Amino acid sequence: MTPMVLKRWLVGDPLKSAQAGHQRLSKTIALAIFSSNAISSVAYATEEILLVLVLAGTAAVAWSIPISLSILLLIVILTISYRQIIYEYPEGGGAYVVARANLGEQPALIGAVALMIDYVLTVAVSVAAGVSALTSAVPSLFEHRVAIGLTATVFIIVMNLRGVRESGKFFAFPTYFGIGILGVMVGIGGIQAFFGQGASVSTDHQTAVEDLTLFLILRAISAGCTAVTGMEVISNGVKTFRQPESQNAAATMLYMSLILGALFIGISVLASHFGVQPKLDETVVSQLARLTFGTGALYYALQFGTMLLLVLAANSAFAAFPQLASILARDRYMPRQMATFGDRLVFSNGIFILGVIACLLLIIFHGDPHALIPLYAVGVFISFTLSQAGMVRRWLSKKGPHWQTKLIVNGLGSVSTGIAIIIIATTKFTQGAWIVFVLIALLVWMFRSIRAHYKAVSEQVALTRDHRPPLPRRNIVLVPINGVNQAVIRAVDYARSRPGEVRAVMVDVDTQATARIQIQWAQWGCGIQLTILPCPYRSVLSSLLDYVEDLLNKEPDTWVTVVIPEILPAHWWHGVLHNQRALLLKASLLFKERVVLIDVPFHLKR
Amino acid sequence: MTPMVLKRWLVGDPLKSAQAGHQRLSKTIALAIFSSNAISSVAYATEEILLVLVLAGTAAVAWSIPISLSILLLIVILTISYRQIIYEYPEGGGAYVVARANLGEQPALIGAVALMIDYVLTVAVSVAAGVSALTSAVPSLFEHRVAIGLTATVFIIVMNLRGVRESGKFFAFPTYFGIGILGVMVGIGGIQAFFGQGASVSTDHQTAVEDLTLFLILRAISAGCTAVTGMEVISNGVKTFRQPESQNAAATMLYMSLILGALFIGISVLASHFGVQPKLDETVVSQLARLTFGTGALYYALQFGTMLLLVLAANSAFAAFPQLASILARDRYMPRQMATFGDRLVFSNGIFILGVIACLLLIIFHGDPHALIPLYAVGVFISFTLSQAGMVRRWLSKKGPHWQTKLIVNGLGSVSTGIAIIIIATTKFTQGAWIVFVLIALLVWMFRSIRAHYKAVSEQVALTRDHRPPLPRRNIVLVPINGVNQAVIRAVDYARSRPGEVRAVMVDVDTQATARIQIQWAQWGCGIQLTILPCPYRSVLSSLLDYVEDLLNKEPDTWVTVVIPEILPAHWWHGVLHNQRALLLKASLLFKERVVLIDVPFHLKR
Repeated sequence: MTPMVLKRWLVGDPLKSAQAGHQRLSKTIALAIFSSNAISSVAYATEEILLVLVLAGTAAVAWSIPISLSILLLIVILTISYRQIIYEYPEGGGAYVVARANLGEQPALIGAVALMIDYVLTVAVSVAAGVSALTSAVPSLFEHRVAIGLTATVFIIVMNLRGVRESGKFFAFPTYFGIGILGVMVGIGGIQAFFGQGASVSTDHQTAVEDLTLFLILRAISAGCTAVTGMEVISNGVKTFRQPESQNAAATMLYMSLILGALFIGISVLASHFGVQPKLDETVVSQLARLTFGTGALYYALQFGTMLLLVLAANSAFAAFPQLASILARDRYMPRQMATFGDRLVFSNGIFILGVIACLLLIIFHGDPHALIPLYAVGVFISFTLSQAGMVRRWLSKKGPHWQTKLIVNGLGSVSTGIAIIIIATTKFTQGAWIVFVLIALLVWMFRSIRAHYKAVSEQVALTRDHRPPLPRRNIVLVPINGVNQAVIRAVDYARSRPGEVRAVMVDVDTQATARIQIQWAQWGCGIQLTILPCPYRSVLSSLLDYVEDLLNKEPDTWVTVVIPEILPAHWWHGVLHNQRALLLKASLLFKERVVLIDVPFHLKR
Repeated sequence: MTPMVLKRWLVGDPLKSAQAGHQRLSKTIALAIFSSNAISSVAYATEEILLVLVLAGTAAVAWSIPISLSILLLIVILTISYRQIIYEYPEGGGAYVVARANLGEQPALIGAVALMIDYVLTVAVSVAAGVSALTSAVPSLFEHRVAIGLTATVFIIVMNLRGVRESGKFFAFPTYFGIGILGVMVGIGGIQAFFGQGASVSTDHQTAVEDLTLFLILRAISAGCTAVTGMEVISNGVKTFRQPESQNAAATMLYMSLILGALFIGISVLASHFGVQPKLDETVVSQLARLTFGTGALYYALQFGTMLLLVLAANSAFAAFPQLASILARDRYMPRQMATFGDRLVFSNGIFILGVIACLLLIIFHGDPHALIPLYAVGVFISFTLSQAGMVRRWLSKKGPHWQTKLIVNGLGSVSTGIAIIIIATTKFTQGAWIVFVLIALLVWMFRSIRAHYKAVSEQVALTRDHRPPLPRRNIVLVPINGVNQAVIRAVDYARSRPGEVRAVMVDVDTQATARIQIQWAQWGCGIQLTILPCPYRSVLSSLLDYVEDLLNKEPDTWVTVVIPEILPAHWWHGVLHNQRALLLKASLLFKERVVLIDVPFHLKR
């Protein structure tokens, strides 16, 4: 199977550009694609809060309820604020577009970079947490967690390269299955809790290793902030919704937030009620499920559903990251290849790069979600704050109906997420958040350099009005030969058909052969002058290059055209039997100014 | 440090071709370079004989003396025969040249291939045995034997790339040191043995695991044949001696044989006298040295000298293998790159290939000389027999003074080495000798195929007397553009200066951009027709290739010239920011017939 056939089998046949319109998403499919990112975080958000609180002993765990409620408040604020953004920016683009329009280049780039880092982490964290859900249920797979995570990531990459609608269809069922079964657990658990029956309450008491300080509570809040990651995804992808795009996107945003809020608060309350504490080898959700369902078919269904939901959450980053990269590439902050549709109408390069970096993170952090989470959430909150701040500026300048209310909503969003950044940065800085800040600075610098480069290029190639670049004053045509044969004669004939002074040049490696060729040249050379170049160090290439260099130096207005007679073997493996001189010569001459290369091929038949 | 600077530091500055004459060797240096191969085999030949005999119990070891004497006889016969070859073929070349002149192509190729295999094994076996000498003295290094062997091989490669005379000087002292100290041991041991004093006789008796059959004795003889490997090296390298080449080479041959014979028979006699038996972790020579010198400074000096001698023996193969390869390349049996002098006046490619294969063998066989030795000696004896047989044919046809005597000498050589092949093949076939036979067949087939290919190529490019290949009937000049800028205009101007129909072609990736460019083209295009190519699958490359293919198919007499405007970045790392379309286009068009490529560069300054 050739690589091309393999590619077709994996990602499908190319799609025509004209088919692009049909790739729009219905609300049902869009909810599956875009919501898994945010909703799946309920699988680890409560656990991250408890992991911090338990440091202050079992009693401190009671703080998880007020902390969860504060996160819920954040969800409400973000939902309202983002619905306003969706209506104002039906083109999509989220933080970057909003900040660029209202705050300027630098904040926009910071927002974009922060989001991109977050998408990469979304893939790594979600896949790692999904594998944790699996290994909680099947502990024997624990040692293979990195391999399982990588397999899942590669699978998602391939699915995304096939195109966004198909991946939506493919992923809708498992997403809804995961949401449904988590809902069932919260429902049954809630009823049990209400009637005080069912589950056995955990009795082992953790001793405190830290005091219950304000700092610890803030750390717990910043750990819980992972619950809201992914809420911005819909605002980036408004364009992929069916018409009317904004209404559909806003409705989807609302459904998503309702599900997210209900599941998150439900799990937090149940965990608190049943006194569940985080364990090294089993997730909090898995413990809750065992308490609610017992370790039966329903328990395994829930673990499997959670895993699917998490692994597919990664998928939402695969929809968002390449889209953002393509917007940046269109604005020349990223290599232009990122803006090109692949042959399945998706931004293949973005998908590929995201996948590769996420795989590297899984390998480096041994597929451990807790190790990755401190890096997470920083980026997304920076982008939240920037887009909300951008909206505030927008309302102030644009005004329009009800602008005061809208200003207050976005203002609240911007202040609350800004506070969250300060909390996250202070409490997680030494745990890895500093890496994200350094990365943001580096990438912003890189993106600006890329734009500067593209600008420099376009200035250099720009045509000045009505001033055509001058033609070379003189053109010397060189034909390097190493014998007299059909390939050489063909090149010489081609060179003679050009205006300009034609010279054949030959490097004197072997004096006897040179003498013989000079005699043959007298017959076949059509009176063209044959220059013999000395070659004291037996390097044909450097003798030729020196000669060309000399010509160019002597006459600064002269261009040199080198006509290379290239003998091409009938089979590639014959290549080892021929000196690769033509190739080396072409590669060396390419980087000389005022040198034009002409390749006259002679194809061997056998 | 750039790769080029590193190369210069390792192998030295390039030497001029005119300096070639100065690289001739004096007898003293030539003996050091060429004799280490043959003489160093005394370090393991006796041990290999004993290893076979001991299978039939301690009593059978007595057979080592008559077996060693038979090997000594072989040394005498070969010395006389090879001196005749040296005088008859002052050009050098050994088995291949002699067999080619007198027996024809097939025997010559078999001889050459057999020798080449043997040179590779010489490097691997000698380095491995040298490391054994070291680890006999310093057992703690045993576990690092592969790494030590590889380091030594790389060192020899680098030294040889510096040029043959310098390596001769560098290696002369250790070679003579090794020979000298082995001579001292044989001398002192001989005196001790004569007066019946000194060493303690080993007392542990080995029980027989096999009967002392004729087959076992023949196996011991074939094991001992490793002693004569390397005797042919001088006859290959006559050209590198100072004038008079033949006399100097013949004299050197004699000295070498005298030293070889004396050391080999001395070690065998001493081993037999002192009852030394082969051990797994210590070489026979090391045991002998302990018995003769005690484990003092002299013992360590001997082990170190033996090691140096063996490692440098590999060096003689580095002089001989590239020389043979270059002769084969000149006769077109090997890729012509093998015949090119490198910039230090040595055949760099041959040195490099020999080194790499030897390193692979060391890794595959874990640096164990006993595992490599069964492969060894087959090849060299095939080449002995073929060159002696060739000389027999020569005397029969050429005659000349004393031809009958010379005929008898070479006849004896040919018959005795022929018998040795039969013995080696029968006794070692299943131990690995079969691999060598298969390899010989394969390589002979490969070499013949290479020659057939070169013949086919020269037939295809040959010019028929006074019949010049016809010029293309029509020439269409295409300029692929993706915008209107200085690079494109330069290419268009260049194309217009050519005779032929010029067309600009553009692939319609983005309809809006295409419309804009068409308007610009009206101003700048000089009335040249702009063809817009459809691009349903967004692949610029395949749209262009399809168009060229169409043109070629429609008119079989037409040639297509593609003028590529290539924007070249100021720094190579800018390359990632540009589509590599020019490169891909050039690579794809190169393999199309009737397509000439013109590369018009536009160099960015920043």
